[in-house]
Amino acid sequence: MTVPNGRDAERGRPATRGEFAALARIARRLPAAPDGQVWIGDDAAVLGPVEGGLLFTTDMAVAGVHGDLGLMGLDDFGWRALTAAISDIAAMGGRAGHAVVAVAAPPTTDLDRLYDGLAASSLAHACPIVGGDLSGCGSVVVAVAAVGTAGPTGTEPGPVLRGGARPGDSLFVTGPLGASAAGLRLLRASVGAEAPAGDETTALVQAHRRPLARLDEGAVARRAGASAMIDVSDGLAADLGHLADASRVGVALDSVPTAPGATLDEALGGGEDYELVIATPEPDAMVRAFTAAGLRPPALIGHCVDDPSVRTVAGSPLPVVGWEHPFA
Amino acid sequence: MTVPNGRDAERGRPATRGEFAALARIARRLPAAPDGQVWIGDDAAVLGPVEGGLLFTTDMAVAGVHGDLGLMGLDDFGWRALTAAISDIAAMGGRAGHAVVAVAAPPTTDLDRLYDGLAASSLAHACPIVGGDLSGCGSVVVAVAAVGTAGPTGTEPGPVLRGGARPGDSLFVTGPLGASAAGLRLLRASVGAEAPAGDETTALVQAHRRPLARLDEGAVARRAGASAMIDVSDGLAADLGHLADASRVGVALDSVPTAPGATLDEALGGGEDYELVIATPEPDAMVRAFTAAGLRPPALIGHCVDDPSVRTVAGSPLPVVGWEHPFA
Repeated sequence: MTVPNGRDAERGRPATRGEFAALARIARRLPAAPDGQVWIGDDAAVLGPVEGGLLFTTDMAVAGVHGDLGLMGLDDFGWRALTAAISDIAAMGGRAGHAVVAVAAPPTTDLDRLYDGLAASSLAHACPIVGGDLSGCGSVVVAVAAVGTAGPTGTEPGPVLRGGARPGDSLFVTGPLGASAAGLRLLRASVGAEAPAGDETTALVQAHRRPLARLDEGAVARRAGASAMIDVSDGLAADLGHLADASRVGVALDSVPTAPGATLDEALGGGEDYELVIATPEPDAMVRAFTAAGLRPPALIGHCVDDPSVRTVAGSPLPVVGWEHPFA
Repeated sequence: MTVPNGRDAERGRPATRGEFAALARIARRLPAAPDGQVWIGDDAAVLGPVEGGLLFTTDMAVAGVHGDLGLMGLDDFGWRALTAAISDIAAMGGRAGHAVVAVAAPPTTDLDRLYDGLAASSLAHACPIVGGDLSGCGSVVVAVAAVGTAGPTGTEPGPVLRGGARPGDSLFVTGPLGASAAGLRLLRASVGAEAPAGDETTALVQAHRRPLARLDEGAVARRAGASAMIDVSDGLAADLGHLADASRVGVALDSVPTAPGATLDEALGGGEDYELVIATPEPDAMVRAFTAAGLRPPALIGHCVDDPSVRTVAGSPLPVVGWEHPFA
């Protein structure tokens, strides 16, 4: 029951239902804080000292806008929300630190399933959830904030911004694109039909439901002298545009690696792959650094040019696509 | 226009409407980052080094649940959302650092007015907004995350937790309670009638619409040896209960300072006053520290006792009131 502005909700002790019981249940599925730190349970989390500068970001997921709960579980929705915020840290070349998660949802929402996905992504990315908030709402909304670090410390360079690319810099992407968009297409096509099957299909659906942030790739790229970086969250064309705008350069792409089963349109316009786009004046050193770290070498997709109006792939204009929320 | 899961929203250049234009407009009303830092505009904000430990918290406000937009403006709603998160930092005895703000709202929402209030609270609390996210949604939801610091550094003690109170500790509150709840009552009574007037009424309405976090009070209390602390966000009875639960003590109150025009029920059960409750083994030193800092001395309201089942005011049981969101 939602009591707008009410201050009179009766509170039973010990509670087995309601916000405080749900919070206690959630806290039990999250890891405990190390000595000297305080995570869930106080007004604010208390974390350890931070070396170098602090990275700080937020990302919000709204059901029906950022994910269709008819095509994925609440656990997938939670996974995606946390991953999107961690990917922002990866795009700076950062190490993930900690996250806080605020959830607004209708009272009948299966919070346990939502937090299953949040906890799984948190574990996969080694980014503990250290605090949160919970509220009634007509929509399911998950707001994540994450902190991280990216130097500078000692000889290690600091965070990689969007705006550091220069004409002549090579452009890389850390992996093939379009998998998430293709997975969404397959899921939509399968509504009311048999569940999609096959290895390729499974991989695409997984890419849509459980994307991974490229933390290792981002950190290696930073140390190898990346001049600019961004994650592919809105679509390559859109995100490369953000990088080019910030760097005041043009971008000329030769080709774009496309995930098996995805179309070129999906590779250019589909977001949420969370691969990283990397600009660097030293392409050979970048490839060597990835190989030395045991990572798949990034794919060279083109280079930056002097004229900021140039936005091409194989000589043709990049499509003007990408996600934007409508506001007046 | 909301395009659920769409990746094909056309993006005009230069845009005067839509998410990116709104974000650009919002960025212009927020202060610029100092040299060496990056605030709005990259994947994550880049902040300076952190001395001692890091505080990290989140707080979410949902229209119709945390604030009635028929009784306050969107600017007030934004102010309250940011203030609630900053108050969590104050309740640890922390210095406010920086905040990120994620907003979900219907496309016709007056974002400028919402950000007016966010920016005003940010300025009032010296807590710059350094990043954000914006999404379409059926409800207005504002999720704030804030970082801060509270030592330990040098001779300065570290953050004050909820769980450090001991039997015999004195209990203080930083100011009279119930003003926000009384302001809400007056606003509700005035719907369809003349706007409430008079100095006392104005003060109560202002307390509801534009509460202040007690950052100075929290920091002074920490340095003066507070053993436990919490902010009054859910109501004194509820929040004092959280402190007592965490500290495994009972609480015996003598009296509770009530804001002029507020009732005792409002003082005990009304939340969102954001005054701080302070436990300390050295009450005289606490009062002297506040006076020396030029702050109004805190009011002694009672003390902690050994038996955790004791929760009384003037010998009678504290009412079981306070806000809790309904969840299964």
